[in-house]
Amino acid sequence: MPRFPNFAHRVESITGSVFEKYRSKMVAQGENLIKLHIGDTYLPPDYDLPVDKNLLADHPDFNRYCNTFGFEPLRDALTVKLKEDNSLSVNRDQILITNGATNALSISMMALVQPGDEVLVLSPAWPFFFGMVQIAGSKIIEVPFYTRLFDEPELDIERYLAEFITSKTVAVYLNTPNNPSGKVLSQPQLEQVARVVQKNNLWLVSDEAYDGLTFDGQTHVSIATLPGMFERTLSVFTFSKSFMFAGLRLGYVVASEDVVANLNKMMVHQLYSPSTLAQQMMVEPVKTRRQWLPSVRNHYQMLRDLAVDIIEIDLHTPDAGYFIFFPADKYLRGRNYWDVIEMCLENGVSIAPGDSFGKDFSHYIRLCFTGEPEERLCVGLARLNDILG
Amino acid sequence: MPRFPNFAHRVESITGSVFEKYRSKMVAQGENLIKLHIGDTYLPPDYDLPVDKNLLADHPDFNRYCNTFGFEPLRDALTVKLKEDNSLSVNRDQILITNGATNALSISMMALVQPGDEVLVLSPAWPFFFGMVQIAGSKIIEVPFYTRLFDEPELDIERYLAEFITSKTVAVYLNTPNNPSGKVLSQPQLEQVARVVQKNNLWLVSDEAYDGLTFDGQTHVSIATLPGMFERTLSVFTFSKSFMFAGLRLGYVVASEDVVANLNKMMVHQLYSPSTLAQQMMVEPVKTRRQWLPSVRNHYQMLRDLAVDIIEIDLHTPDAGYFIFFPADKYLRGRNYWDVIEMCLENGVSIAPGDSFGKDFSHYIRLCFTGEPEERLCVGLARLNDILG
Repeated sequence: MPRFPNFAHRVESITGSVFEKYRSKMVAQGENLIKLHIGDTYLPPDYDLPVDKNLLADHPDFNRYCNTFGFEPLRDALTVKLKEDNSLSVNRDQILITNGATNALSISMMALVQPGDEVLVLSPAWPFFFGMVQIAGSKIIEVPFYTRLFDEPELDIERYLAEFITSKTVAVYLNTPNNPSGKVLSQPQLEQVARVVQKNNLWLVSDEAYDGLTFDGQTHVSIATLPGMFERTLSVFTFSKSFMFAGLRLGYVVASEDVVANLNKMMVHQLYSPSTLAQQMMVEPVKTRRQWLPSVRNHYQMLRDLAVDIIEIDLHTPDAGYFIFFPADKYLRGRNYWDVIEMCLENGVSIAPGDSFGKDFSHYIRLCFTGEPEERLCVGLARLNDILG
Repeated sequence: MPRFPNFAHRVESITGSVFEKYRSKMVAQGENLIKLHIGDTYLPPDYDLPVDKNLLADHPDFNRYCNTFGFEPLRDALTVKLKEDNSLSVNRDQILITNGATNALSISMMALVQPGDEVLVLSPAWPFFFGMVQIAGSKIIEVPFYTRLFDEPELDIERYLAEFITSKTVAVYLNTPNNPSGKVLSQPQLEQVARVVQKNNLWLVSDEAYDGLTFDGQTHVSIATLPGMFERTLSVFTFSKSFMFAGLRLGYVVASEDVVANLNKMMVHQLYSPSTLAQQMMVEPVKTRRQWLPSVRNHYQMLRDLAVDIIEIDLHTPDAGYFIFFPADKYLRGRNYWDVIEMCLENGVSIAPGDSFGKDFSHYIRLCFTGEPEERLCVGLARLNDILG
């Protein structure tokens, strides 16, 4: 049974923060309120910290617990970014700051699905998502999708996806720009996905981690901007890719207030909140992104062009992101796939095996063209050519 | 059925990082290995960062994904801290860095218990732990414990806990120093808990978040140091309390290699890893803790003495931590408990309601004596006295 607009049972049974119901009374008190309710320290750390003293002076609470929905100036900066870059007009309360997109996807599954449910995972898909569906107790229905769209851009998506939907389907996992294939869905393609989701009354988890990194002037469209989609979509973004700060572990999810409140209940039980300091550090970069992001994107596009040019493999040029994903079977020349993967390692180049991205991709290989400096990338690709080319 | 040394089914069904099996081959290649397998960027963030330039120079990978088990220099520094401060002799692979103690407790429940199981929660207990047990699908068995030990230090713990154990009991949640009561268990008391756990073949989750903050020269004993306990104990620590950095969201769990590997599988599916930069920032403070921690502890002890002195309530002086926890029923004078809680808020002082800490404590109140500067603490306590005293 479709569940939208309801949530998994585990969410309904869990209370959120103890203090949530008193929030308005607390806010009304302002500075007068002496807070003895939360376990915290008023002292700053009593040791040297390698952080800019101006940041610490601007944010005397840098070491303390943050609002678990997110640092408000960061959420405010993101409302502007979402409007300008994604055509998503949302308010602060429709944004939840998470511990990376990983955490946003994890709590999405915990909040939406449960044992007995089925989740359509359009594939190839980011490996950890499969485990998240399993941990939430639900069944993964893999739908080979993005690579097929390179070959059949006119595929009747509505009809195709309908083949995989049953009475147990509760949610669809969409990821465009796609990791690993680099496929970016066009607006007409997204409209078909949206129709399927609405017609079957499903939730949609839209993983937009590679937002901001489309090449050749292509545009990434957030599916939540399509009519009737906002209320049933969880749009997931990250600071790991276009903001170049994977190590900071910061992301965010955009959804209705009701969804945000229920995702937050799951998040506080996994990790309480993302880092206060990390959130404070990202306010300015969100505001200045148009000054520095275009040159980053151009640099990645140059690396993509270089990689596509060097590698002696038939492949689809990725529209966006970090990766090239190709079927390797015709380059094995009788060798075992896994032996070739190991041979790559032994020859000094590591690539990701395809089966992590879905059961239909066990003959594929994924390589990242942004993780190594240009010169080393070229050496790595030459090593791959020696083995596969 | 006791499950030790096995794990919940959800763990057995999930694979860890795709690249785990190739780790030794990768390490063997060293700098020669050109890494095209992970989705990462070799570029540092292209915008100003409010972080000490020396830290960034020392750690050129500050913005990149970290080993999901933790930044190795931090784990190495913690092996020294654990030996010197907790008498726990462990190696690096017996430590998992987590996103705060919250995250360590969350993944502990996800890895150890499942529907049909019972978890003994010694109470009063940290509120979020109850939700973690529920999210893992297990039944909470509350055992009123810490406050009782103030009145009955000679309680026969072994016999008392045995009353709550059934054939479905899989794990016990122990928290000493205790939040909210401030009780610190003595070694003889811990030995009794240890005997119950071993006799019934249970897992033990030992929440030691207030490690380092015992007063009056009292010692906190890590239960994992008792004979036969290490292999069945998950010892959980944090940087939020004695390291005064709750906002950084960093903690760690100490356990056998097998437990650490299975906890890591759950963690990577919740949030991938804690922040690389946060881990790099904490290496030095771990090493220098003996220079600054005693004065922090003394300051908190002074605040505790001040609070106990000012407040006109009968209470047990806490042995450790941040809190005073007392039964408020005899101060209600016919008023409704919740009306009094709201009256406190309206009079500019917030306290935590007791029922969050367990069903037996709905007439209690918890207050934190470390979250506000001395002067404001005194004002807050005077306001409380006006209402309750």
